Amino acid sequence: MLVTNGTPQSVSIGEFTTEAGVTIDASITYQAWGDFRGSNVILVEHALTGDSNAVEWWGDVIGPGKALDTDHFCVVCTNVLGGCKGSTGPSSLRSDGTAWGSRFPAISIRDQVNAEAALLDVLGISRLHAVVGGSMGGARTLEWTLLYPARVDAACVIAVSARASAWQIGIQTAQISAIERDPNWQGGDYYDAAPPTAGLAAARRIAHLTYRGELEIDERFGTTAQRGENPLGPYRDPNQRFAVQSYLDHQGLKLTERFDAGSYVALTESLNRHDIGRDRGGLNKALAAIQVPTMIVGVDTDILYPYHQQEHLSRNVGNLLAMAKISSPVGHDAFLTESRQMDRILRHFIELADGVRDAGIEYHL
Amino acid sequence: MLVTNGTPQSVSIGEFTTEAGVTIDASITYQAWGDFRGSNVILVEHALTGDSNAVEWWGDVIGPGKALDTDHFCVVCTNVLGGCKGSTGPSSLRSDGTAWGSRFPAISIRDQVNAEAALLDVLGISRLHAVVGGSMGGARTLEWTLLYPARVDAACVIAVSARASAWQIGIQTAQISAIERDPNWQGGDYYDAAPPTAGLAAARRIAHLTYRGELEIDERFGTTAQRGENPLGPYRDPNQRFAVQSYLDHQGLKLTERFDAGSYVALTESLNRHDIGRDRGGLNKALAAIQVPTMIVGVDTDILYPYHQQEHLSRNVGNLLAMAKISSPVGHDAFLTESRQMDRILRHFIELADGVRDAGIEYHL
Repeated sequence: MLVTNGTPQSVSIGEFTTEAGVTIDASITYQAWGDFRGSNVILVEHALTGDSNAVEWWGDVIGPGKALDTDHFCVVCTNVLGGCKGSTGPSSLRSDGTAWGSRFPAISIRDQVNAEAALLDVLGISRLHAVVGGSMGGARTLEWTLLYPARVDAACVIAVSARASAWQIGIQTAQISAIERDPNWQGGDYYDAAPPTAGLAAARRIAHLTYRGELEIDERFGTTAQRGENPLGPYRDPNQRFAVQSYLDHQGLKLTERFDAGSYVALTESLNRHDIGRDRGGLNKALAAIQVPTMIVGVDTDILYPYHQQEHLSRNVGNLLAMAKISSPVGHDAFLTESRQMDRILRHFIELADGVRDAGIEYHL
Repeated sequence: MLVTNGTPQSVSIGEFTTEAGVTIDASITYQAWGDFRGSNVILVEHALTGDSNAVEWWGDVIGPGKALDTDHFCVVCTNVLGGCKGSTGPSSLRSDGTAWGSRFPAISIRDQVNAEAALLDVLGISRLHAVVGGSMGGARTLEWTLLYPARVDAACVIAVSARASAWQIGIQTAQISAIERDPNWQGGDYYDAAPPTAGLAAARRIAHLTYRGELEIDERFGTTAQRGENPLGPYRDPNQRFAVQSYLDHQGLKLTERFDAGSYVALTESLNRHDIGRDRGGLNKALAAIQVPTMIVGVDTDILYPYHQQEHLSRNVGNLLAMAKISSPVGHDAFLTESRQMDRILRHFIELADGVRDAGIEYHL
């Protein structure tokens, strides 16, 4: 039933009820690589605007002979619930032929994991050798350890926190607001008209500044003017830019060409709701309850999920497998760009995870 | 001629030509406290949305017996050129009775200092015992040491950098863009209609997240819901907020009640143009040329002007008087809120500045 040749597969998971109590019909799209041998699945979780094509966005660490070795493991990656890359989200069509838009429910990180678990049920995957993910993918990985501890042998949680911080909620809300202020947004029901591209681009420009360390951006652009433009002219002119403005404009534009604003809002909202302590007696009780061997990874220059948040996780996780720090000027995105360090970290994680399983250690509650 | 009873005074500085070559008629508003004795003036420079009423926004360090002691010193504070608190800016009326709006030229930090120097000429203040300022006020203080070294005995530069970093330009441009995207902006010519308050509030919400450390904001708000609201409901609802969203909304609203969007854009643009190396042979040559004894102060948790930027300044300033670090979870705004530390730092600075003058050290080029 599991298709492992890497082609995207859309699978209905039937009726799905969100944490906040809305029931929808949902499908999840996945891709998989490497022969499935029952207990050799590594589930890779993508970040906010990622997709199921993990061999593309994490190609340096997934493949034959690579850290997540598809000669040995079956790597599975799903598009997140609420996304726009094959899984059900605001831009998907309902049975009446119109897009969900504002009728799409608010979803939480837990909803995303529950939908993914439902997909694995359909596919007949009962157990995961490992779950690995960074950023929003790290939040999902963390929830896997609490929602389905009996199904996960080991987890690698990268560049994320135990819950949204107030600063994260603030900067994420600024992005949502940038989209809502676009007249094309229409409360989220714009799918039969022009999309709110200006708003989505503005959101991405803000977001990108949280994904990249200020050292790295400054090394690349400093106060250089964009070629052929003069940002120091006698009157302010939005078309006369510094190089960094042009770079951010490009980042914004690129996203509008590949991503839906409704999904961006829905998934950003799910990050606002990220809190593993909710309904579990608080943050520290929830963390202490984690019995899945869990590795925590952070980036020293991460502005969005500062390293002290990963230190907090590693101090409090009930079963800490290991901790690792990526040193990089790049900031949050370093888990995607610092291939050499990520390779080393993931190989270490896989070794530790194999050891845990081979030792037959009984760690589940 | 100098009025030292603290009441705001508007003074014409006549024709003023900007760095980029536009000539305007300009007035500068100032306030002063403490008897003027010729060589006892301390010029205090306000930050982006500050004003000349320094005893209000820095009341803990300015006054009789305080660090900037008005029993001994005459403290002068001007509203910046381009501002909206008495000095000429986009909202000021031209001779034809209409507001400057988009016809107001782009200004630089150097323009702000040159306008201030022109005011001091009119007031008969030839020499400053000290110039002190944080953030945009720190940028002006730094420019004072290079534009008018012979007029400044000592400088205290707080929470700023030698030039805008690419990250700062990026996040500042995001704020300008938030205002430009408000339909009420009208290219800056909205003064006979409704002002772009939604855009200005959005800009301030972004800015505030750079003024406050994420630790401090998280300690105060975490993931708490705003009282009477439920941010975890079944559908996303902008009116059901986390407490931090309500706090940021309040910060945005407050600014729209006291500040003009046109000034916000003009002054933010001047921060984008901040670069003491421009036309001076580059950054390090300019810094090395600083012969005014200069104290550098930074905040350990500053996201906007990270502490390494003040370390860079202190390593390269030609005549470093001292360096000090404010330890605080508050971030950038700590120079306004950590009164005890700021008091100690400024008293130390004044002692050092007095010593430099009393020793009659010849340090000017």
